[in-house]
Amino acid sequence: MLFEQATGFLAGKRTAAVVTHIRPDGDAIGSASATIMLLAAHGIDAAGYVGQYDEMPAPLRTLPLGKQFHCTDTLPDVDLIVVVDCGSLARTGLFEDHIRAHADRTLIIDHHASNACEAQVNVVCPEIESTCSLIWQWYQETNTEITAPAANAMMGGLLTDTAQFRYGRPAARDIAADLVKHGADEGALVHTLIDAISAENLQRIGAALAGLSIHQMGQKRVVTIEACDMDIPTLERIVDFTRGIDDADLIAVLKRLDQDTAAVSLRSQHLDVSRIAAAGGGGGHRNAAGFTVHGWTMADLREFLAQHLDD
Amino acid sequence: MLFEQATGFLAGKRTAAVVTHIRPDGDAIGSASATIMLLAAHGIDAAGYVGQYDEMPAPLRTLPLGKQFHCTDTLPDVDLIVVVDCGSLARTGLFEDHIRAHADRTLIIDHHASNACEAQVNVVCPEIESTCSLIWQWYQETNTEITAPAANAMMGGLLTDTAQFRYGRPAARDIAADLVKHGADEGALVHTLIDAISAENLQRIGAALAGLSIHQMGQKRVVTIEACDMDIPTLERIVDFTRGIDDADLIAVLKRLDQDTAAVSLRSQHLDVSRIAAAGGGGGHRNAAGFTVHGWTMADLREFLAQHLDD
Repeated sequence: MLFEQATGFLAGKRTAAVVTHIRPDGDAIGSASATIMLLAAHGIDAAGYVGQYDEMPAPLRTLPLGKQFHCTDTLPDVDLIVVVDCGSLARTGLFEDHIRAHADRTLIIDHHASNACEAQVNVVCPEIESTCSLIWQWYQETNTEITAPAANAMMGGLLTDTAQFRYGRPAARDIAADLVKHGADEGALVHTLIDAISAENLQRIGAALAGLSIHQMGQKRVVTIEACDMDIPTLERIVDFTRGIDDADLIAVLKRLDQDTAAVSLRSQHLDVSRIAAAGGGGGHRNAAGFTVHGWTMADLREFLAQHLDD
Repeated sequence: MLFEQATGFLAGKRTAAVVTHIRPDGDAIGSASATIMLLAAHGIDAAGYVGQYDEMPAPLRTLPLGKQFHCTDTLPDVDLIVVVDCGSLARTGLFEDHIRAHADRTLIIDHHASNACEAQVNVVCPEIESTCSLIWQWYQETNTEITAPAANAMMGGLLTDTAQFRYGRPAARDIAADLVKHGADEGALVHTLIDAISAENLQRIGAALAGLSIHQMGQKRVVTIEACDMDIPTLERIVDFTRGIDDADLIAVLKRLDQDTAAVSLRSQHLDVSRIAAAGGGGGHRNAAGFTVHGWTMADLREFLAQHLDD
């Protein structure tokens, strides 16, 4: 029973704060929302918190309970803190110090390999594709009814973190089937969380894709793309549009955040891009990584890539 | 038992031709391939046929048995003809006359509402999201083992016809979970059948998206896009890139097939575009329809849309 200790930890608790990572995504809000509902079913009055001042992106506010999350610097005085989908306590943002000071009343539920398990009780499974999959397991073990809102919350996270079932364990499809049976509307969630874009932002992404260039660097074929004049959510989307490129060894997107700063996203089907990103002061996964640069031109990016491609 | 009559029809048969629609897609080849494997499990020697001279697109040839389909004008002399995923016998292309002449030995399995059920035995269910879902049902009813190739074949069709589970019955998710359990590799199929694109073709699609324009026509907001200088498979892909546009009533893509001819694709979340397409001499579904035009400029398209938007 994966959640035996976690479920025992709920005994006697009446109030809870459910915290997820700053700059939240679908798995963050989905898993926090489903956790709040599970706690409520067990008689615990819980609410959701994000340790930042910025409001959450609009699509996430359409998730169940999404409108009720607090973006703030202060956690209330509660019996229980549940930290979900945070690869480290630093990812709880403005709450980090508070949570460290109250680790004895904190439960961590996460699927990031980087998690240092610093709470009283830690349920951390790096092999699981989403934190929502873990929360689904918690519902099973506690025989908690999966209501339609809970099903939609968990499906939102599962869709986000598997990129619509492109990745993840075969078991993720069983969880999806179960969530749909309990009322999750996969099509509506895909539209809201993955597809939706304004015509003008799609036009901006089109312009960036139209400007892509292809470079032969030694034995490697590299695609570089520059994305500018876009709001942050649109910038974050552009890499997904390059996912299908099947005739390049590496895809590098220079996403201009402001006049001086840019985030570089690296993708590859078979190269270890985390090593290239590390050379740029960043990091990430084997097939998807990134780093931040200042004052770089596209020529600077290409020169950097040519230098580090064979690291 | 949906397939009771169809299964009985197999008795005594030794050889079969499985025919699917011309210009095949994932559901066509996936369902034909899974049918061939089901027939083989029942002792019938079957092969796949497409009634056209053109070779199948490369991604479809990666599906199980995909390389073994015959694109030709002649069907062999067999005991049984199974026509899958063809909304009408006309969609069997060069085989139409032959199949009409041998309707007494023909079985139709399909999910198009337009099907006229002209064979000896017809299993036609318009409410089912894919022909592969029907074939899966046939496997269940006949207790036929779903091998990994059969699972991949059926998953290919299910993914194609539901646009990766954006559409379809909740039961489609159960079928997907079952197919994954039997060895279907959803991620690999999505990559091959849906995502894969060359960098240069993505650049061409980007240029078309960059050139999109937004028009106010009365109360309606219309996005028009012109796509040219692309091979046919890339032209067919462009509409998928516009799927997420959420601030337009209608999306119209003029896809230039040659100097004179263009196919117009219409999409809407809430308008009945089949009526507009019909005014242009075409047809389709409520939310997705199209028609063919000759010698039209983009201005011609916009004028046509403005005229027929309120039909």
